[in-house]
Amino acid sequence: MKVNNIHYKTIWMDSKATVFMIHQNELPFRFRIFESSDYKTTAHAISEMIVRGAGAIGVAAGFAMAQAFVKMQTQNLDDKFIETAKLEILNTRPTAQNLFYATNEVYNIGVKHGASSALEKAQFLAEQDMQMAKSIGEVGSVLIKDESKILTHCNAGWLGFVDYGSALAPIYIANNQGKKMHIYVNETRPRSQGARLTAWELLNEKISFDIIADNASAYFMAKKEIDLVIVGADRIAKNGDVANKIGTLEKAICAKYFNIPFYVAAPISTFDPHCNSGIEINIEERNQNEVLYQTGVTKHGNLNTIMVSAPGSTAKNPAFDICPADLITGIITPFGIIQANESSIEKLIFS
Amino acid sequence: MKVNNIHYKTIWMDSKATVFMIHQNELPFRFRIFESSDYKTTAHAISEMIVRGAGAIGVAAGFAMAQAFVKMQTQNLDDKFIETAKLEILNTRPTAQNLFYATNEVYNIGVKHGASSALEKAQFLAEQDMQMAKSIGEVGSVLIKDESKILTHCNAGWLGFVDYGSALAPIYIANNQGKKMHIYVNETRPRSQGARLTAWELLNEKISFDIIADNASAYFMAKKEIDLVIVGADRIAKNGDVANKIGTLEKAICAKYFNIPFYVAAPISTFDPHCNSGIEINIEERNQNEVLYQTGVTKHGNLNTIMVSAPGSTAKNPAFDICPADLITGIITPFGIIQANESSIEKLIFS
Repeated sequence: MKVNNIHYKTIWMDSKATVFMIHQNELPFRFRIFESSDYKTTAHAISEMIVRGAGAIGVAAGFAMAQAFVKMQTQNLDDKFIETAKLEILNTRPTAQNLFYATNEVYNIGVKHGASSALEKAQFLAEQDMQMAKSIGEVGSVLIKDESKILTHCNAGWLGFVDYGSALAPIYIANNQGKKMHIYVNETRPRSQGARLTAWELLNEKISFDIIADNASAYFMAKKEIDLVIVGADRIAKNGDVANKIGTLEKAICAKYFNIPFYVAAPISTFDPHCNSGIEINIEERNQNEVLYQTGVTKHGNLNTIMVSAPGSTAKNPAFDICPADLITGIITPFGIIQANESSIEKLIFS
Repeated sequence: MKVNNIHYKTIWMDSKATVFMIHQNELPFRFRIFESSDYKTTAHAISEMIVRGAGAIGVAAGFAMAQAFVKMQTQNLDDKFIETAKLEILNTRPTAQNLFYATNEVYNIGVKHGASSALEKAQFLAEQDMQMAKSIGEVGSVLIKDESKILTHCNAGWLGFVDYGSALAPIYIANNQGKKMHIYVNETRPRSQGARLTAWELLNEKISFDIIADNASAYFMAKKEIDLVIVGADRIAKNGDVANKIGTLEKAICAKYFNIPFYVAAPISTFDPHCNSGIEINIEERNQNEVLYQTGVTKHGNLNTIMVSAPGSTAKNPAFDICPADLITGIITPFGIIQANESSIEKLIFS
C-alpha cells in the first residue's frame, strides 16, 4: 500500500539478510524504517512490537530465524546456538500462531539445507503472506455491499502483514471496486492500534471512517449503524475458536446479540492444527503500564508518555481473548469463506 | 469520604450562596476546590464536567438555580432573567435526569417563595442526595459476599454524588462491614473516569482493585473472575431501561451472556416518570477531541494533553448508551432492590 504516494511493504529483507520494517511503535506520529542485521535485534523488534500484527510477526520471525542461520554459518557456530536462537524467537510473543509457524518452517529448512535455503524460505513466506492477504481481500469483498458500514477492531490491515492485511483487505479491495463504505474503527485500548494504525491506513487510502471508543461499539450496533464486523485473528484452533486482540470477544458477543454478521479474516498460517480449542491457547499478559500510561504527540509535535490513571493504581493487561466458534458467522480465508467448525477447518488446512 | 484523611463532600454551598466543589477535571493528578459565586459559573462547571456524576450534577444544578434566585433578588431582576437562567442550567448536559429534577424543584419553590426558600430547597436536595446514597450502600451491600470480585464502569462513587456514591456505595458499606473484595475498574474511555476517579476513590479507601481496559471485561467474565457487576445510572425510564455512561450496554450484554448478575444502583431522583422507555432518551454527543486526545501527567508532574490517534482522524463520541431493562438483574435503590420493570418502578416512585 502507499505512504505519501510511495509504495511500501511493512517488512522486507535484502540480499545481505538485513531486515527493514516500518517502525510501528512510532506510527502514526513518525514514519521511519527500522533496520536490523542480527536475529536478536529482529526478535527484539517483535517483542517490543516495532513490528506487530499476525502476518508481519510471522514474516519477521522467519527473517529472524534465517538471520540466525546466516550468523551460524558466517561465525561457524554450533547447533546449540541455533537451538537457543529458535527458542528466543519463539518466546518473543506467546500467542501468535504465525510466529510459531514461520519460525519452524525456516528452522526445518535451515537445519537440513543451510543458511541460503533458510533465507529463500523466509523470503518465500513473505511473498506468500502478501499473496494470501490479497486473496483474502478478494474473497471477503463479496460480503461488502455498496454503502456498507463496517466495524473493525485493532489493526489487521496491511501494517499487520507484508501488504493488504486480513480484516482490512476486503475493505481495500471493495474500495478498489468502487464501493462506498464507512468504517467504524475501535480505538482498541490499551495500545490503541485502531486509533493509530487502522486510522492511519484508512487516511492514506482515503476511505471514510470514524474512530470510536471501544465502549461505543454496542451503541452503534443498537442504532443499526453497523452492517458487518470484520476482525483479524492471532490464532485459530481446530474447532474454530479464535484468539485475537483483547476486546474481540466483547464485540462478537454484542454482534450476536444484535444479529450482525461477525467475520474473522485470516491466512492459512493462522490456523493451528495442533490446537484443539481456545482453552489450550496461552494468553499473553503484558505490562500494566500499557493501561496506566498513554503515548502520543504534544501540540509541539513531540512524542510524550503521560500517566492517564490515578497515581499508585495497578492494572491487569491481557493482550488477547478467545472468541468461541459459535459467535463467528464465518472465516474469510484466501481460499473462500468457511464456517468456524472442525470439519470446515480440516478440509481447508489439509486440502 | 476522606481525602488524605480529611473528610470532604464532593460539593457544598455556604450561607452566602457560594458553591464549592472538588475540581474533578484535575483529579486524580491535582486535588483542589473550585469556587463559584454565580449561577453562570456553576452551570459552566456542569457543562465542563468540573462537577460530574448523576447525583453531584443534580445538586450543582439545584445550587445554580438557587444562586440565580439570589441574584434576581439582590439585583432586582425580572422574570425573564430567571427563565433564561433556568434554561441555561437545564441545557448544560442533555442526559442527566437529576439535573432536570433538581433544577425544577428549586425553580418551583423559588418562584413561589423567593430566594431564601430556593436556597433551603437546594441545601435539602444536597442533604437528601447524601442520605439516599448511604441507603443505597446499605441496601446493596447484601449482594456482596466476602471475597467477591466486582466489575464497575465509569465513576458512580462518592465523587458522582455529595458522598458515598451509587454503584460504589454498596462496596464502601461492605468494606466497612469487613468484607474482602477485589474490584475490576473499567478504564471507561474516552474520559477514563474509571481509571482516574474510581481508582482514586478506591486508593483513598484502601480497597483492592485493578484497572482494566474496557475491552477486557468479557475476558475476565469468561475466566469467572467477576461475580457481580454494579453500575450507576444517569436516567431510568418507566419501563426500566437505563441510560448510563457509554459502554454500559456492552457490559450488560456480556454479563447476560456469561450469566453474571448485573445491577444498576440509583437514587429516586434518577427515575424519570415522564420517560416511557429508553428510546425517548436524548443521547449527548460530546466533542470528538475527547476520543482523539488524552490528558494526564508527564514524568515531571505536569498536566499535558497529547494526541493519541492518527493526525487528521475524526471520531464519534456518544457519551451514554441505553441498557434495555431485560439485561438488568435488579436496581439497587435507597428503599430496596427492585426489578427493572414498570410495575416495580411505579410502586417505588409513587409510594
